Amino acid sequence: MELCIFCKILKKEIPAKIISEDELSLSFEDINPQAPVHILIIPKKHYSSLIDIPEEEKSLLGHLMIKAREIAKEKGLEKTGYRLVLNTGKDAGQAVFHIHLHLLGGREMSWPPG
Amino acid sequence: MELCIFCKILKKEIPAKIISEDELSLSFEDINPQAPVHILIIPKKHYSSLIDIPEEEKSLLGHLMIKAREIAKEKGLEKTGYRLVLNTGKDAGQAVFHIHLHLLGGREMSWPPG
Repeated sequence: MELCIFCKILKKEIPAKIISEDELSLSFEDINPQAPVHILIIPKKHYSSLIDIPEEEKSLLGHLMIKAREIAKEKGLEKTGYRLVLNTGKDAGQAVFHIHLHLLGGREMSWPPG
Repeated sequence: MELCIFCKILKKEIPAKIISEDELSLSFEDINPQAPVHILIIPKKHYSSLIDIPEEEKSLLGHLMIKAREIAKEKGLEKTGYRLVLNTGKDAGQAVFHIHLHLLGGREMSWPPG
């Protein structure tokens, strides 16, 4: 079975600009950035979307948000602010079916969020 | 000390169109909806933003996402898709300083997300 593109990044089979890595997650730059800082935070375990995450993995979901916060702080965004976005399914424009949290900052974000 | 507007909603001092409530969270309609479904999911405990949440509350953060998923399912968005958004600070346009997760769906969302 073909690995998903993010699983290939996890296995270092495809290059990515990696920002941080821990036992549960990997963070790397979005290849099509929509803001001066645009980073994806993904779990190492493959789940295609929020729909597929077991409820027992609540703390993994929280971990992705705490990682995003850490990276935002490292990138100097704590004072200016930042937006986290999680797309699920077609209407949201989810492009890769390995759950990934977007961290966007470094510019003023408009409303509505897409 | 004046309660924040979301704490007032939690205490039912201000009306809101409540969607669901459990021991940890309250979900209600955004008063200025940006999509056919636009619901806010907040923790009952007051935290002004993601920056103020202790790391031990990871599972609370995950709980907000799981609640959003449950509501999305109830609203029939599981097949069409939906976007979750968490704004932190000025650049993201955070308007109320009680952390709240936006659930948006029922229309195609564009990219970038604001």
